[in-house]
This record gives sequence, C-alpha cells and structure tokens, in this order.
Amino acid sequence: MAGGIGSRFWPLSTPEFPKQFIDILGCGRTLIQLTVDRFKGVCPMENFWVVTNASYVDIVRQQLPEIPVNHILAEPAARNTAPCIAWACWRIKAEDSEANVVVTPADAVVMNPEEFRRVIGNALKFTEKSDAIVTVGIKPSRPETGYGYVETQTDASPAESEIHKVAAFKEKPDLETAEKYLKAGNYLWNAGIFVWNVKTIIEAIKTYKPNISSDMERMKTEADVQEVFPQCEKISIDYAVMEPAAADGKVYTHPADFGWSDLGNWASLHDKLQKDSENNGAVGKVRLYECKNCVVHAEDASKVVLQGLDGYIVSAKGDRLLVCKRSEEQRIKEFSQAD
Amino acid sequence: MAGGIGSRFWPLSTPEFPKQFIDILGCGRTLIQLTVDRFKGVCPMENFWVVTNASYVDIVRQQLPEIPVNHILAEPAARNTAPCIAWACWRIKAEDSEANVVVTPADAVVMNPEEFRRVIGNALKFTEKSDAIVTVGIKPSRPETGYGYVETQTDASPAESEIHKVAAFKEKPDLETAEKYLKAGNYLWNAGIFVWNVKTIIEAIKTYKPNISSDMERMKTEADVQEVFPQCEKISIDYAVMEPAAADGKVYTHPADFGWSDLGNWASLHDKLQKDSENNGAVGKVRLYECKNCVVHAEDASKVVLQGLDGYIVSAKGDRLLVCKRSEEQRIKEFSQAD
Repeated sequence: MAGGIGSRFWPLSTPEFPKQFIDILGCGRTLIQLTVDRFKGVCPMENFWVVTNASYVDIVRQQLPEIPVNHILAEPAARNTAPCIAWACWRIKAEDSEANVVVTPADAVVMNPEEFRRVIGNALKFTEKSDAIVTVGIKPSRPETGYGYVETQTDASPAESEIHKVAAFKEKPDLETAEKYLKAGNYLWNAGIFVWNVKTIIEAIKTYKPNISSDMERMKTEADVQEVFPQCEKISIDYAVMEPAAADGKVYTHPADFGWSDLGNWASLHDKLQKDSENNGAVGKVRLYECKNCVVHAEDASKVVLQGLDGYIVSAKGDRLLVCKRSEEQRIKEFSQAD
Repeated sequence: MAGGIGSRFWPLSTPEFPKQFIDILGCGRTLIQLTVDRFKGVCPMENFWVVTNASYVDIVRQQLPEIPVNHILAEPAARNTAPCIAWACWRIKAEDSEANVVVTPADAVVMNPEEFRRVIGNALKFTEKSDAIVTVGIKPSRPETGYGYVETQTDASPAESEIHKVAAFKEKPDLETAEKYLKAGNYLWNAGIFVWNVKTIIEAIKTYKPNISSDMERMKTEADVQEVFPQCEKISIDYAVMEPAAADGKVYTHPADFGWSDLGNWASLHDKLQKDSENNGAVGKVRLYECKNCVVHAEDASKVVLQGLDGYIVSAKGDRLLVCKRSEEQRIKEFSQAD
C-alpha cells in the first residue's frame, strides 16, 4: 500500500512526492524500497503488488523496476485501505487462487528486518494451514496515543507458540488509557501489517462488506476500474473487516518487536535516526555547530550549515524550506498550506 | 569596480556569483544595477565602464546589456583597486583625454539617490575646474570600526561650500578611537567613491606609483593585458595614491549623507531592509511565525517557513542553506569553507 500523501513532513514530503518515495533515513533507499528489501527471501520480486495513486505509478516504476508493471495498481481515487486491499487480493486470486498474502504499508520502517522475516514466516505458516486473519501486533514501548491497539485474549492458550487470538481492536486511546494498555501487557500497536490466505480475505470481504465484494467482481477492464473504483465505499480495512471478524473470533495476532515505526511525525524520525553526541539526527550534507536535539532532513542540498539551534526541525527540499521548533510540529500542515 | 567575491554573505553570495550581482535588497534590481541606476542623468550609459574579474564578464553583460561590451574590462587576476582604477582611467583617457571620472564600488547601497546625484554633481563641477582628487566622505552615524576614515582640515575655509581639504586618511580604528572620531565631527567614512579628472589621476599615479603607470603604458593589446596586469603591484588606491596625495595637500572630500552602506555584513543588510513589526527583515517568499530580530534572504526559494527564531540569519541560495545566530556572523566565512 503506497498511496499516502504524507503532509506532516512538508517540505520533505509533498503530495507530489510523498514520504514512501523518499530516502527519509538517509540510507540510500527510499521507504518503499526498504519495504520491498525486507521481504528478501520471503517473497520473490515477481510476486510483489503495489497499490498506489495513479499519479505515483511512474515513481513506483522508477524506484522498483523489478516489480512487474501489471502488478502496479493505479487507484483513480483514494478510497482508504479496504478497497485498496480488496483490489489487490482479487487480482492476486486471479493469478493464484491459493496464495498467501502479506499486506504492508510502504512508508513504515523496520530496524530489524531479520526479526521481521521470522515473524512474517511464522504468520505465513499459520495462514497456510488455517483460514485465520493475522495482524502483526507491535509490542508497545511507550503509552502512545497516536496508534490504534490490538487486544489479545489472555485466557486462551496460544493458537501457535507466538500467535494469539485477538479479543478486540481499540481506537487511538487517550493517554490514561494508553498507560493502562501498556501496564496490562496484552495490548499491541496495530501496524497495519496483515497476513492471510487470499481465499480467507475474499470470503471475509464477501461476508462483512458485500458491496465492496460486488464492486470487485465488476472490475474486469481498465474502464471498469475507472468507473467502479472511485465509487467504492471509502472505508478502512480495520472497520470493514478486522473489527467484525475479530468479534466473530477469526482474527489472530503475532506480537512482534522488530524496531517498527510508522514514521508518522518528526519525533518518530528523530527517534529512528542515528544521533550525534548532542542528540541531533541529520540526513544530508549537514554541518552542525552548537546545535542540540535537532532533526534535520536536507537530502538533496549540497551544503547546509546550522548554528546555535536547540530542539528544531529543519527540512529542506528543492526550493522549499521549513525551520520550526520540534514542539510545534503539529502545525506543519498549517504552515505548508499558508500562501 | 565589480570584482569583489563577497564571502561574508555565504551562501547568498559565493565566489561564483558574488553579492554585487545579487538582488540583495529584494527590490528587483541587483546591486550593480542599482549602482548604475543611481547615475541616471549624471552619466549616459555609453560612458560607463566596469572593471571586474574575467569570470564575471558574462554576468555583467547579462545584467547591464546597455553598457558597451568593450567598456567591460576583464581582470585576468585580482590586483586590488589601484591597478583596477588605473586600467579604467588609462582606457577612458584614450577615448576622452579631458574626461571627468567617478569611481564607485558596485556593491554598496545608497538609500537616497537624489542626494547622491547632488553630491556627485558638486564634486564633478569642482574637478572640472581644478586638478583636485575628491573622495566622498560619508557622515558617520555611529562609531563604526569596520571602515577607514577621512579626516578633514578644520582650520581651512572650504574650497567650495561643501568641499573640504583632506588632512589625512585613517585606518580602521578601534572602538575608543572611533568614538573620538564621531565626537570630533571632522572624520568621515571612506566609502571608496572618488571623483577626478582623468588627467589628474594619471598624473598622480605617475607621481606616486610610477611602476603601475609604466605597466599601464605597456597594456596595448589583449595579450599585453594577460601578461602585464597579473604582475601589477597588488595595492589599494588608498595606499597607492590617496594617502601620499593627501600628504601633499591635493585631496579633497565632499561630506555626504545619502543613506550609504557598503552592505559589508548581515547587520548592515538587516539595517537597510524594511522590517516587520517584530524587527525581522526578509527577502523572498518567506512566512514567519513567532520570529523576531531575524534577517532572512531566500531570493529564489518558492516557499520558506520559519517558526520560533529570535535573532537568526537565514540565508538560502540554490541548494545551500545557512541558519546561524546573528551574533556569530563573523564565523560565516569559516562555515562556508568547512567541507
């Protein structure tokens, strides 16, 4: 899934070139490339599928030339994750009616890809022999209020050694609730990474969202896609399938700890970047003098010099520049929209 | 004179494109264009001469297309102001042996061009009928330690109503001395703006710097320039001519107050820019939130957003960026040279 527009990282990320297509960690690979990289040995290149906005297809082809061109699905409009995932799974089923599928966002980071592969391998083995819907649950390290949570059943014996039945999905909590979740121990972050057999998800969509299922059945030609997809119900896979399926006892989770972050804001980027002795994280040709606690991204600048800044975001991209206090990062969208 | 390399305004100004060729005030005209503009009605375009480094000739031709191409003198090497001025004056004499000449740097600003023209007009009238060497002396507004000073004779009656004999040139003073100069009232800033008859300056160079005079006599062809000019003595016109001529009682000054600044640093640029209510001076498409006392130049950026900065310089040009405290601006050259 590579359709996000990443407005919180302006001007690093823009609707014309959002963060999944950016080398946000300064490691030489963009987030979508890193996402593909971490499936090495799990999924051959010819089995990848990318669903993205039509306007990003050229970027995907350029950044992932090994993926078959007919596996890049161009959404004519953004309809949230349920139609996105449904479309890919219907297409996958047409090629392999027994396929096991991993669904992942293209804009998250995983600092330990080896552990990621182990977890995904476990989940794939589980869905090979069952009609389980598996969501990967990230073990929380802090009382985060920016993510949804997955509650696991504590009384049941595990389905497999590391796979637990999901009791419920929980919306983004307030801080007090998040602290309770962290203390309770059986709440995990919902990372939007799902594993299932293609038959399972298609059955589930037929059951819980028959309107989306029938839309998918109508999408035979490119013209059908243009006509039908923009009219699909705009709904997340969580609301459309995961929550009702969990209520029916069909959803499992694999708790995981592989250094995941959705890089949803500058704080999480700062967290994942390598820091200097003054707690600055910087990507690009950046020289810092008397700076501390800064997060800097100037990937394509030939030279950036910063002096005397404490606790600032500096983001430069092309001919756009943002300097603002880290404490004010929730205003970046407002800043980006000002004339 | 347009040969400076302006390292103190990095990255706004670089050796490849120094400040005289930049619209540093954000008014739509570069400093060299403004310098030419302010002689409107004083000097026709066909009488302008520009001496610059060979590497800047194309920029001069582009920015000042009205100036005759053969009046743009390309220095093969920088030899300070004495050879620069001598070369131009020798060439002017070949076209008009009676010419009155105004010499001016191309990278200063004058906020009151009308008063500038009045002062220059007075000085030209004076040099038409005398063999005086005239330097324009800027009435000091503060005990500036960054400029040289011109001391006028206090006991003599003025040569003309506003033109006084120069007693001595003074090097850049320390603060205590600068305060004395300011209090004394007969010390003026040496702005490097000179007025003389071409015969006068050529005689003076023959007298005080016969080596430069004989070098000039040898520069008949382009090949001669390439051979001779780089070997000319590297010396300022102040040391070469003004100081010894003043000692001989041949130098006069016209005190002036026309809003002159050499824009030698960010403080002087901040001083000359129009400020918002929070004392920020900004050039370019810049949006400021909770900023004060900043000076910002981002001429060619499509959008700059700054938040929460107090007393900073922000300079963006092409793919280079500087953010530093105004109190640290003397380190900019060091910053620009770091790898």
